[in-house]
Amino acid sequence: MIVTVTLNPALDVTYRVGELVPHGTHRVSAVGLRPGGKGLNVAGVLHALGEPVLATGLLGGAAGARVTALLADDAVPAAFLPIAGETRRTVTVADDVDATGFWEPGPPVTHAEWAAFVAHFRGLLGDADVVALCGSLPPGVPVDAYASLVRLAAAGGVPSVLDTSGEALRHGLAAGPDLVKPNAAELSALLTPAGAGCREVDAAAHALTCGARAVVVSRGPDGLLALTRDEAWRGVPPERLTGNPTGAGDACVAALARGLRDRTPWPELLADAVALSAAAVAAPLAGAVDPETYRRLLPAVRVHAA
Amino acid sequence: MIVTVTLNPALDVTYRVGELVPHGTHRVSAVGLRPGGKGLNVAGVLHALGEPVLATGLLGGAAGARVTALLADDAVPAAFLPIAGETRRTVTVADDVDATGFWEPGPPVTHAEWAAFVAHFRGLLGDADVVALCGSLPPGVPVDAYASLVRLAAAGGVPSVLDTSGEALRHGLAAGPDLVKPNAAELSALLTPAGAGCREVDAAAHALTCGARAVVVSRGPDGLLALTRDEAWRGVPPERLTGNPTGAGDACVAALARGLRDRTPWPELLADAVALSAAAVAAPLAGAVDPETYRRLLPAVRVHAA
Repeated sequence: MIVTVTLNPALDVTYRVGELVPHGTHRVSAVGLRPGGKGLNVAGVLHALGEPVLATGLLGGAAGARVTALLADDAVPAAFLPIAGETRRTVTVADDVDATGFWEPGPPVTHAEWAAFVAHFRGLLGDADVVALCGSLPPGVPVDAYASLVRLAAAGGVPSVLDTSGEALRHGLAAGPDLVKPNAAELSALLTPAGAGCREVDAAAHALTCGARAVVVSRGPDGLLALTRDEAWRGVPPERLTGNPTGAGDACVAALARGLRDRTPWPELLADAVALSAAAVAAPLAGAVDPETYRRLLPAVRVHAA
Repeated sequence: MIVTVTLNPALDVTYRVGELVPHGTHRVSAVGLRPGGKGLNVAGVLHALGEPVLATGLLGGAAGARVTALLADDAVPAAFLPIAGETRRTVTVADDVDATGFWEPGPPVTHAEWAAFVAHFRGLLGDADVVALCGSLPPGVPVDAYASLVRLAAAGGVPSVLDTSGEALRHGLAAGPDLVKPNAAELSALLTPAGAGCREVDAAAHALTCGARAVVVSRGPDGLLALTRDEAWRGVPPERLTGNPTGAGDACVAALARGLRDRTPWPELLADAVALSAAAVAAPLAGAVDPETYRRLLPAVRVHAA
């Protein structure tokens, strides 16, 4: 199975209002609740594809209990470590124009809780084919947390996909993850200030020198770039899709984790990741993909050596 | 003791952000949680004044449990009826300029839950000197809910103060509450469309003809107007205070409930209500009053026959 790790998940709350007026008061007409966090979206996509998956990470408090219940409603297998802090909420106010987001800070995690999670994660590796390590780190978790998990997985013979940013990405790279999936902005940030605006391929090459075995850069509607020490590929979607781009990167990680498990060759893997990302744009919610779009686009994705 | 009733309480959540940008994403730097709802604010003010008080109403779910815990932290006596629905949250986004509010709808209340609350309320009347009935009604509670509670209280010899608006106020008036405290806009709305913009004293007189024994109209920084069948009084604060006007009306209700209990004569009662309202403006949070402001203003409030 594929194990997805979400250390800073959220209860995603959506408020529907007519029009957002700064410094006004709004009656919310509808409240939506969803499990939130990159790794949970990856698990949701894999589960929808019929792939064996287990979601793990840290959950606490009433919001954490609600996330657990929502995952159970969706029948997504999960084994989260309980923590004393309260899982954060992300509130999205959706008006007739667009969405406005408010992200609570993550809950504090104690040293003992982090140590317990590492032991929990080690216990899950026996059944894992691949681990996907996704998203930000809550306060209290060491900045090199992903490096520790990548090394534990590697010691157990389990390849890892890392999708994070900033310091968590920088430290994680040093442990040699099998695949990292930054977007272009996250990659440039690794090289800042000098790297701001540098070519993606140069930034990706830098990630390789930092330790990653392969880099897949998401380029939004322009598709994906894959770089290893020996190969370079570009995958381009056959058409521009309009919709909700929020979960596209997570659908991409789902495809990459599955491909890593199956040792899928790069051209085929990249085509799958491009089509699944596009199918996520066509679905209304993050963590879901539109099956019809996926089936239609998969044979039409153009992949070429870069 | 004074019993305050809050049928549609809330968990008040405050998000601190730098600047609210519509359709942007905001990292919340601090999350504040408070018990919310007019009746809870009235109870908080009375408790701070050292008056025996009991807060009751309907609470449910994780947000309801959090409200209960926050009331216990503040040592405010409370006896809420548990309901299956989840108590609403009100999210206030505070930036460097002002506050933007998002109010969730209240939870659905079943017929059985409402019947259970009526029995619970009847049980509390034996120890009650006054009841204060405050705020909006959640879905499922009958629109004449306050009329039922006013009649039950009267049958038990307990006077009532009613602070609500719209249909809940219109129906409540018919039961003859001892005191109603609308603001000028709520009062005009009772008479709309013809009454829009009518003189406050005329609108207050209308409330008397609808059944109220006395009406106190809050006029913001201009103070209070009291009207009974025989008397009319105005109370004016000695100075204009800047601060947070959110809880001023609730502090006014706290003063009126205490005065009703003590049969305080109108001039003295109105002075107390004006000073306590101003002391709430001077306090940073709704449900609190600034004791120094209260002490300073009380002897300086001007009350005259209107």
